Amino acid sequence: MNTPKHTPSASQEKSANPLWGGRFQGNSAPLLQQINASIDVDNRLFEEDIDGSKAHAAMLADAGIISRADAAAIAAGLETVRGELQRGELPFRVELEDIHMHIETRLKELIGDAGGRLHTGRSRNDQVVTDFRLWLRRALDGLDGDIRGLALALMGQAKRHSETILPGFTHLQPAQPVTFGHHLLAYENMLRRDRGRFRDCRERLNESPLGAAALAGTTYPINRQQTANALGFRAPMENSLDAVSSRDFALEFLSSAAILGIHLSRLAEELVLWTSPAFGFVKLSDAYTTGSSIMPNKKNPDAAELVRGKAASLLAAFQHLGGILKSLPLAYAKDLQDDKAIVFSAVDTVSLLLRAMTGMITDMTAQPEAMRRACAAGFLLATDLADWCVQELKLPFREAHHIAAKAVAICEARGSVDLDTLTESELKSLHPLLDTRVLPLLTLEQAVHRRISYGGTAPSQVMAALERAETFWQEAV
Amino acid sequence: MNTPKHTPSASQEKSANPLWGGRFQGNSAPLLQQINASIDVDNRLFEEDIDGSKAHAAMLADAGIISRADAAAIAAGLETVRGELQRGELPFRVELEDIHMHIETRLKELIGDAGGRLHTGRSRNDQVVTDFRLWLRRALDGLDGDIRGLALALMGQAKRHSETILPGFTHLQPAQPVTFGHHLLAYENMLRRDRGRFRDCRERLNESPLGAAALAGTTYPINRQQTANALGFRAPMENSLDAVSSRDFALEFLSSAAILGIHLSRLAEELVLWTSPAFGFVKLSDAYTTGSSIMPNKKNPDAAELVRGKAASLLAAFQHLGGILKSLPLAYAKDLQDDKAIVFSAVDTVSLLLRAMTGMITDMTAQPEAMRRACAAGFLLATDLADWCVQELKLPFREAHHIAAKAVAICEARGSVDLDTLTESELKSLHPLLDTRVLPLLTLEQAVHRRISYGGTAPSQVMAALERAETFWQEAV
Amino acid sequence: MNTPKHTPSASQEKSANPLWGGRFQGNSAPLLQQINASIDVDNRLFEEDIDGSKAHAAMLADAGIISRADAAAIAAGLETVRGELQRGELPFRVELEDIHMHIETRLKELIGDAGGRLHTGRSRNDQVVTDFRLWLRRALDGLDGDIRGLALALMGQAKRHSETILPGFTHLQPAQPVTFGHHLLAYENMLRRDRGRFRDCRERLNESPLGAAALAGTTYPINRQQTANALGFRAPMENSLDAVSSRDFALEFLSSAAILGIHLSRLAEELVLWTSPAFGFVKLSDAYTTGSSIMPNKKNPDAAELVRGKAASLLAAFQHLGGILKSLPLAYAKDLQDDKAIVFSAVDTVSLLLRAMTGMITDMTAQPEAMRRACAAGFLLATDLADWCVQELKLPFREAHHIAAKAVAICEARGSVDLDTLTESELKSLHPLLDTRVLPLLTLEQAVHRRISYGGTAPSQVMAALERAETFWQEAV
Amino acid sequence: MNTPKHTPSASQEKSANPLWGGRFQGNSAPLLQQINASIDVDNRLFEEDIDGSKAHAAMLADAGIISRADAAAIAAGLETVRGELQRGELPFRVELEDIHMHIETRLKELIGDAGGRLHTGRSRNDQVVTDFRLWLRRALDGLDGDIRGLALALMGQAKRHSETILPGFTHLQPAQPVTFGHHLLAYENMLRRDRGRFRDCRERLNESPLGAAALAGTTYPINRQQTANALGFRAPMENSLDAVSSRDFALEFLSSAAILGIHLSRLAEELVLWTSPAFGFVKLSDAYTTGSSIMPNKKNPDAAELVRGKAASLLAAFQHLGGILKSLPLAYAKDLQDDKAIVFSAVDTVSLLLRAMTGMITDMTAQPEAMRRACAAGFLLATDLADWCVQELKLPFREAHHIAAKAVAICEARGSVDLDTLTESELKSLHPLLDTRVLPLLTLEQAVHRRISYGGTAPSQVMAALERAETFWQEAV
Repeated sequence: MNTPKHTPSASQEKSANPLWGGRFQGNSAPLLQQINASIDVDNRLFEEDIDGSKAHAAMLADAGIISRADAAAIAAGLETVRGELQRGELPFRVELEDIHMHIETRLKELIGDAGGRLHTGRSRNDQVVTDFRLWLRRALDGLDGDIRGLALALMGQAKRHSETILPGFTHLQPAQPVTFGHHLLAYENMLRRDRGRFRDCRERLNESPLGAAALAGTTYPINRQQTANALGFRAPMENSLDAVSSRDFALEFLSSAAILGIHLSRLAEELVLWTSPAFGFVKLSDAYTTGSSIMPNKKNPDAAELVRGKAASLLAAFQHLGGILKSLPLAYAKDLQDDKAIVFSAVDTVSLLLRAMTGMITDMTAQPEAMRRACAAGFLLATDLADWCVQELKLPFREAHHIAAKAVAICEARGSVDLDTLTESELKSLHPLLDTRVLPLLTLEQAVHRRISYGGTAPSQVMAALERAETFWQEAV
Repeated sequence: MNTPKHTPSASQEKSANPLWGGRFQGNSAPLLQQINASIDVDNRLFEEDIDGSKAHAAMLADAGIISRADAAAIAAGLETVRGELQRGELPFRVELEDIHMHIETRLKELIGDAGGRLHTGRSRNDQVVTDFRLWLRRALDGLDGDIRGLALALMGQAKRHSETILPGFTHLQPAQPVTFGHHLLAYENMLRRDRGRFRDCRERLNESPLGAAALAGTTYPINRQQTANALGFRAPMENSLDAVSSRDFALEFLSSAAILGIHLSRLAEELVLWTSPAFGFVKLSDAYTTGSSIMPNKKNPDAAELVRGKAASLLAAFQHLGGILKSLPLAYAKDLQDDKAIVFSAVDTVSLLLRAMTGMITDMTAQPEAMRRACAAGFLLATDLADWCVQELKLPFREAHHIAAKAVAICEARGSVDLDTLTESELKSLHPLLDTRVLPLLTLEQAVHRRISYGGTAPSQVMAALERAETFWQEAV
Repeated sequence: MNTPKHTPSASQEKSANPLWGGRFQGNSAPLLQQINASIDVDNRLFEEDIDGSKAHAAMLADAGIISRADAAAIAAGLETVRGELQRGELPFRVELEDIHMHIETRLKELIGDAGGRLHTGRSRNDQVVTDFRLWLRRALDGLDGDIRGLALALMGQAKRHSETILPGFTHLQPAQPVTFGHHLLAYENMLRRDRGRFRDCRERLNESPLGAAALAGTTYPINRQQTANALGFRAPMENSLDAVSSRDFALEFLSSAAILGIHLSRLAEELVLWTSPAFGFVKLSDAYTTGSSIMPNKKNPDAAELVRGKAASLLAAFQHLGGILKSLPLAYAKDLQDDKAIVFSAVDTVSLLLRAMTGMITDMTAQPEAMRRACAAGFLLATDLADWCVQELKLPFREAHHIAAKAVAICEARGSVDLDTLTESELKSLHPLLDTRVLPLLTLEQAVHRRISYGGTAPSQVMAALERAETFWQEAV
Repeated sequence: MNTPKHTPSASQEKSANPLWGGRFQGNSAPLLQQINASIDVDNRLFEEDIDGSKAHAAMLADAGIISRADAAAIAAGLETVRGELQRGELPFRVELEDIHMHIETRLKELIGDAGGRLHTGRSRNDQVVTDFRLWLRRALDGLDGDIRGLALALMGQAKRHSETILPGFTHLQPAQPVTFGHHLLAYENMLRRDRGRFRDCRERLNESPLGAAALAGTTYPINRQQTANALGFRAPMENSLDAVSSRDFALEFLSSAAILGIHLSRLAEELVLWTSPAFGFVKLSDAYTTGSSIMPNKKNPDAAELVRGKAASLLAAFQHLGGILKSLPLAYAKDLQDDKAIVFSAVDTVSLLLRAMTGMITDMTAQPEAMRRACAAGFLLATDLADWCVQELKLPFREAHHIAAKAVAICEARGSVDLDTLTESELKSLHPLLDTRVLPLLTLEQAVHRRISYGGTAPSQVMAALERAETFWQEAV
């Protein structure tokens, strides 16, 4: 049912693996080759692999383990291979399994015996996980910029709409009026924590496994501090078994990505709602919507739906790697092979979702009239009536709440949607002390402008929040 | 961070989508194209798409909706496109988004206006899900054979080892002796149910969505029974909204696949244990093991580990699609776009795991001596001693259990591992009625040969089970 | 941090476990007791445990393994215990760990030595999983009724609203008009398949593990067919290791429950949307809504939100048990202990969600005016215009689609929302053959009444579907 | 099928909810009460709820919103309620739904009208999430101690076994000898990062939502900095919508818990392996093992299995809450109600698993002879032979690897398991420069003592690592 992407070459079918086949009589089943080969995935590690090998070779020479001449040949050879890979000139062969073998094999072709000395004092186990950490570290730096891009887009719209009023919802029922800028900044706040999680993850993973060798360390007088420094790691990992066995750094990334994905999915859900004519709060640009093959009237928020849908893949990715790791004894086991495919795909997805959302937010046009119309439903000012009863009439909150509820019922009964249509006698019937003094407060503007508690929805609070946000994201660069 | 696999063509950047772009002024963002294009995935549907379109066109002609000449042109044109696709001659272009657009566009190039009539009375929504069901139906037929292959491999080894004794474990502690054939047939029994689940899934999904159109049915006098019959569906689906919105058929497949994956993972775990020198119960062939780049002594059960690891992807796949669907209102939403990628990948994985496991089981060599040595640990015959006390001495089971436990303690105290070394006086000290008559029963052979309860581990039961299994899997073809 | 619900009794702290403690010197850590005790969960199995034990005892007597007198005493004693448990008179003690030990201990108190003979020829392993299968079988029968209840509620509303028109949505954008009855029956169709999955699960799990003993069968001449028959099982399971090790029956239930939960969550999402004033399509009764402590104006669709939220627990439950099982070697391992808590909780949740949804659907009041108002947005009749161009003017569908799209643009440009306001000259500008003949078709009633393809949204199709549904669910009893 | 734990009281069935029922005519369905009531879960928040309310009341008085007298009465009344709750004297009633309502209702009984003023300027939404954050913050402090406990237990055993040699495994195949202390410290290293994640989570969640009110802030002149300070929060949250809508703090805890659970599950898997007679590396104490009801010979590592099994619940918990949140629009929705049950249960589980593992590790007895015997299998010293060829003979690593592989094959062929049995001529046949000088290095002691690279397995490295660990965990208090 499956077609392997690379056909095993003829030579491979006749001989055992050049790397480890020393005492094997038979050959690998084509199926095992197919299941085992990771070159389609791990070729993305080539820069990191070459960086790691160069650092390792330089250290081996400094420690007197290989000659300076060999180290120089290795460094030069690796740069040649790097160029070939960057230009797509090195063909991938399934029998060479992974990018590490491709690079090493090509290096030996280029520089001969010296190439065979590169692998001294390290193993595939520490080599691969070193590359993986380097790759993820760089990916996190890229995502940091993507997050910032979305935060800035949200802030741009928030500035534009610090006074634009729409219903704030709980349970998707209109609850109290809020400003659109305030609503958008809620997501900017979430992104700060998302960025914090990625940064904590980056800090925690930034330790060097290189030199852990297969699992136990090595008898060569290697200098792990040196390679750690050369590769920008904070320090060498302290335990060789831990270094080759643990993947919590990948799990931590995936869980942080899943949480970010949830935030994006919530915003995407709101975009889907807001662009539905039922709400009509927002128009997305043509660049982020599509039409229908059968219904010429449609303008679909595809990009928002794809963000919402793909967020599910991030939750599943954490589950996937977690399921792989859950019952594995130390140290390395082949089950781990899929760790990179999972993380690579998650990084791609996170970046894609962030950039798609940034595009949508940047391009979207708020529809203040539709927002305002929606405020007519739901008696959004009932809380303000209740609060006034507490503040001016000194009624206990619970009693004030009952008064406001009855006021809503009176208006509903006569088909009105506005509390400021209450008459003097209706007000009196609710409470003897209640009178028309309250009515001027029962406007949307009053409602939002008076919510000036710290972090509240008042335009003045939104502007203050924007100032704080600008400081935060400036420092974030 | 992401490189799109296809660069949008220049023409696309200047014009709106040919399919639905009628009233769109702007162009799609390259990012949306990237996120939206599914041709890399759904090109696997081309056979089904052509089959479905041919059935639809024939029905349209029979119903008088299009002319016979148009239908004939469409059918011929579609076969031309099929050939081009089979030979890889039709280049994929990201601006044509998906396989359906590629086929339709090419058809129009080939046959002109008639091609534009093919889409009458159907929509992309019902077309895609029809293709998807057809594809999964065929995939399930393929997997049925893969499952059978593994069952036969297990049965082959079980026949060879109906009398081979190894410890049966609970809690990974030796519990009672079992026959290796019996142990392997436990998995054959699981596969029967796995196959049953796939067949139930196939039966339930085998209904035709074609003709549901976008979501509401159509005003054309189409004949849904006819297209359902032509495509081998049991019947047309009864509700057009359900037809385009539901994906429970995909979820059911994924959950059945995940359960099968768990069974394979359990067997893989056992292979990893059994090939560890600590157990040494089994040798895998060189075809399914690999060596180490640093440790020349290694022979690693990679294929088993990969099966165990990849089983986690199936659990995650169910979660992924479930997460996409959980809160979607009817009818179609773009979130669903990833449904096919998830299912295609799961089908590939299931097939790969089944075939890898079949290879390992077929090739493996049991090591009866190592199995027997392992029986020396753990006092496997203690249950038999207790049972004898019940059967011959008529003691209550609980009392007999305590006697056997004390017998174990006596042997342990003097460093023996065999209960049949108990002396007459030791036996008497356990219970006055106990004597050496019991000792001949305390051998491994007696223990397994006497467990003749239906489905028990006795060789006679294994052979009877094999006969039933052969009948079962013969009928399964 | 955790308070055990039961304090270990003093006696327990001084002695080893009465059941298996024969050769143990030390005592269990209180922590292990806490982690190990399952009585809080498995007391729900008491009826099944007693049924299973009675069947086992009767068989033991028929097979001559215990005396008829003992069997009679056991049966009578068990009925006494059953009564005590039904009346809540048997206190639970954490040192007796589980319900099986409680029943057996109490039985021995009541009938003495004979009670000790009950456990002959079986083990805790086969006993527990027998009880579990019996319990789940009964639970599935209960859920079958719950599903039917919801289907009938949907059908009741569908009958009432076979002609009520609302927008059908794709991408939450109005697409084409549909009838509310048709929309509700989409869920009725999903429920049919949900019920089918539960029934398939019931059929597949309905095999008896009893007599598999610990893992290998037994040397006693037991009759597994007899106990299987007595307990209503289709047959004894064929492999003793499989019988005690497999939990795919629980996984299959959980996945079917998760899929059902997704269907309910989708309907719940729609109820949340529909009750939002933005849509206003439906009013829920006070019985299924709540107010707000601070906002007297709120009427929140809490029950719908809880259904939607709790559906996530079912997806997680499958993941949970799957994660437990994934890498377990045969046969029993203690990891499996949580299987029952997971399934019990899922059964409770499924039943609760079904009944809550049934209540909401039964009580809800559709708001046809609001539905109709919503049809004004979105040019729902554009497809009908395009279809007419195909059917009457014989234009290719793609060209007709472009015409309809332009018609929408013309109306939008002059602020109209209705295609039947197109003037003769506007129509001509779209296509020379187009004229006002088309306008009478461009009404909502025409649109739905003309969609009479099988399974389409026309009222006539809804009534036909209701007839089929009534037949289906009558037979389902 | 479900029995509600509390029967709705008669009074409740006759009247609407006292808190929000002002404009509701009908009553809640018993089912909604059942689904809605959370008192069984959230009663665990009572201390935090009272702390939060006291801080809020004090602030209200300082801000002049309520009188000092009222604030004093509230504070005194709340302490009375606290005492009643601590002593279990306040009966829970399902119609009061949650702990917040119970406390408020009781407070009003105790102090009258003043109690009704407590809820001024806050809402249930900000109140609940404030309590939740306070609770989780305290729980994290408790878990910090539990983690430290396990780290110290591991270090204790590591100190004892810095020189004890066992095979290090990859792929569960013996790879190279390692010291047991080194192996255990791998887990100690993982725990450092687990603790780091919990601390980062604690830091990030330590912001105050109090004063966000329902969603928009409030018109009362509240002082959010004051309440934040009083409750030990770093600062008030900056956006009121974010404050009541976000649950990433709970997700971050759950994911960190899941990762920790994976580490514990891996260690538990090793304990299960090590206590199996096949390995026999470790004996667990009777306190953490159990016997079998049918097999008197068994000593099962139940506690380890339960740790391994329950780790799956933590992965599922993240999935569960993630699934709830994924598509929720702002602000609060009832779906979130289950957030606390999920987190409470996860905290209990993490604590239980940590303490169970601490008990097992503390009590376990390593079996150095069994470990050493296991080193005989697998040619653990082949790497050392290869390394010597590189270091002394200056051969390229890859050539040395082939020599070592052939040496293994020679020994295997004559049934030997030790490389130091190679004869001079055998050595010469492998490479002309190879001779018996290498043999003294081919012992287990040499192998481990020479692996002195930083973080390697040499006893000297283990002792150095222990010193670092002691410093680390001392500072951790």
